[in-house]
Amino acid sequence: MRLAVIGGDGIGPEVVAEGLRVLRVIEPKVEATDYDLGARRWYATGETLPDSVLAELREHDAILLGAVGDPGVPSGILERGLLLRLRFELDHHVNLRPVRLYPGVATPLAGEHTIDMVVVREGTEGPYAGAGGTLRRGTPYEVATEESLNTRFGVERVVRDAFHRARARPRRRLTLVHKTNVLTNAGDLWLRTVAEVAPEFSEIQVDYQHVDAASMFFVTDPGRFDVVVTDNMFGDILTDIGAAITGGIGRAASGNLDPSGKNPSMFEPVHGSAPDIAGQGIADPTATVLSVAMLLAHLGRTEDAARVEAAVAASLAERSRPRNGYLHDQISTREVGEDLAARVAGYTG
Amino acid sequence: MRLAVIGGDGIGPEVVAEGLRVLRVIEPKVEATDYDLGARRWYATGETLPDSVLAELREHDAILLGAVGDPGVPSGILERGLLLRLRFELDHHVNLRPVRLYPGVATPLAGEHTIDMVVVREGTEGPYAGAGGTLRRGTPYEVATEESLNTRFGVERVVRDAFHRARARPRRRLTLVHKTNVLTNAGDLWLRTVAEVAPEFSEIQVDYQHVDAASMFFVTDPGRFDVVVTDNMFGDILTDIGAAITGGIGRAASGNLDPSGKNPSMFEPVHGSAPDIAGQGIADPTATVLSVAMLLAHLGRTEDAARVEAAVAASLAERSRPRNGYLHDQISTREVGEDLAARVAGYTG
Ligand SMILES: CC(C)[C@H](C(=O)O)[C@@H](O)C(=O)O
Ligand SMILES: CC(C)[C@H](C(=O)O)[C@@H](O)C(=O)O
Repeated sequence: MRLAVIGGDGIGPEVVAEGLRVLRVIEPKVEATDYDLGARRWYATGETLPDSVLAELREHDAILLGAVGDPGVPSGILERGLLLRLRFELDHHVNLRPVRLYPGVATPLAGEHTIDMVVVREGTEGPYAGAGGTLRRGTPYEVATEESLNTRFGVERVVRDAFHRARARPRRRLTLVHKTNVLTNAGDLWLRTVAEVAPEFSEIQVDYQHVDAASMFFVTDPGRFDVVVTDNMFGDILTDIGAAITGGIGRAASGNLDPSGKNPSMFEPVHGSAPDIAGQGIADPTATVLSVAMLLAHLGRTEDAARVEAAVAASLAERSRPRNGYLHDQISTREVGEDLAARVAGYTG
Repeated sequence: MRLAVIGGDGIGPEVVAEGLRVLRVIEPKVEATDYDLGARRWYATGETLPDSVLAELREHDAILLGAVGDPGVPSGILERGLLLRLRFELDHHVNLRPVRLYPGVATPLAGEHTIDMVVVREGTEGPYAGAGGTLRRGTPYEVATEESLNTRFGVERVVRDAFHRARARPRRRLTLVHKTNVLTNAGDLWLRTVAEVAPEFSEIQVDYQHVDAASMFFVTDPGRFDVVVTDNMFGDILTDIGAAITGGIGRAASGNLDPSGKNPSMFEPVHGSAPDIAGQGIADPTATVLSVAMLLAHLGRTEDAARVEAAVAASLAERSRPRNGYLHDQISTREVGEDLAARVAGYTG
């Protein structure tokens, strides 16, 4: 397995090291190549993602990314120049984000909840297309635009992917989330596409919710969701709510997939570089390890993926409760990684 | 007081009747004129908001709206043709939405929370501008666009309004919510505008959060927010999360304000027409009554507004807990309205 590793900034390299530790238990001969990308490189060279590096990344089976970003970098530079550029150039049109409450994990919600859904977020169009501009900047007459671009091609492929995932899950439900009553053009395209694809998946129960209502139900009744398919921006928001209700972004994994296999897919924890706790060895690597499980699943290694997930589930059930998504002082990033690696090694999950 | 009343559809007329009952205690001589707008009118005539009706609405001191919508009306017709048209034509640029957890009200969040914020949502631009279109509809090459239009004029006036509100509140905090790292054009405009206005309000503590992070913190740590200022779409989502964490949309009030006073402002509960429970007299009119309090405050009648709010607070503290934002069967819409009216009348709050 040829793996490109982008540790990135802040806690990124720390959590990625533990992800690799776990991966090496399963695949000792993984060829991991480090790529120095992120704030550090930008400070040093002004580069975000040189074309030559992108070309090298393409030669791998998958990419594991920690987190990039630093308060000193102007907003948008690394996001548009690196993270989103990777997603767009590598055609990561399925941004897959499981939202699962593991037994024993504290949730901010009162009462008992069974939360086990997956959000299929479109990853290569919508408001993330980068279309927009500014006119008369700095004057009282300034206008700034952001354009959401949506193609039938782009919507249909992610909708089909979501239907396939729903078919493989026991509850077989698919919820489209959009804002069709306001974004009538894009909303209509999404609605029509789902309606046209649905007959091919007649065993799937399909419904629709506006993004505002869905955001509410993520909090009041998350158990109702199974597979959620949605636009890039709505998916960004919903998956952070999803992270919140399942114990914090220290748990939330994600895969940026090109399911066609033409490009390497990229796996990353949803959390950021958390400069405030960087270098202290206290970041929770669980989201990264779960992203490694997604990587394995994507490469067809379903059983290995299940082993890693089982190790995480067992560890979470035992571990003391985290604060703000991060671990208590008494457990270090490394201890968690070693614990997970040992569980995977020994099937002691 | 000349009041235009749009009861609308479903539970709309039911809750508005109770809002009026409470208002009449304070202002017995309110001249209320009913306007038949919404799904019923659209079914009957195809009209959403005739120009002549709009002209009449302008002649009032304020508008009280229940809810419009029916499952049989195609998505967008009433939203764009009536609700949003009212907001845009009447220049309701401040969409004000308090998010407050009243003592005794059940929240889906675990633990103790003090939630008392107000979301100042921009109401007349952003992704709601209605700019966008569809090309090659129904073909594999279809493209649908939605354009977010943001002007310095529009952003600055709502930002100023939010700063003024923050100044009048004890905690004096203002949080800008946007997605500056992806929506770099509009995000930059919002950020710069806040930064440029801030020095005039040096006593206000200002911070910024991405919408995904803010959505998470609404769930994990809502007590940190005081005044939130944000774009039209983000405000839509955040205020539904806000409703969820404070006991459901049966409680959430809103004001669509033109603070210049040139146009009548419009007050409405955030909930919809809820056709499933319409006609049963079981809808919770609390959100409408709280919207009436906002109406009074907007017309400068601060003490009367406080009376209504105190009545609601006292009633909520006593009332049995609602399910799904709606009342238990044993308390009717009318009973709640009468209870609130009696409390307001007798200062028994
Ligand atoms: C960092 C940012 C560009 C990114 C996004 O908005 O997609 C992040 O929030 C995420 O969810 O992966
Ligand atoms: C009905 C819809 C157009 C409206 C909106 O999106 O603003 C509603 O959700 C609201 O929040 O008032």
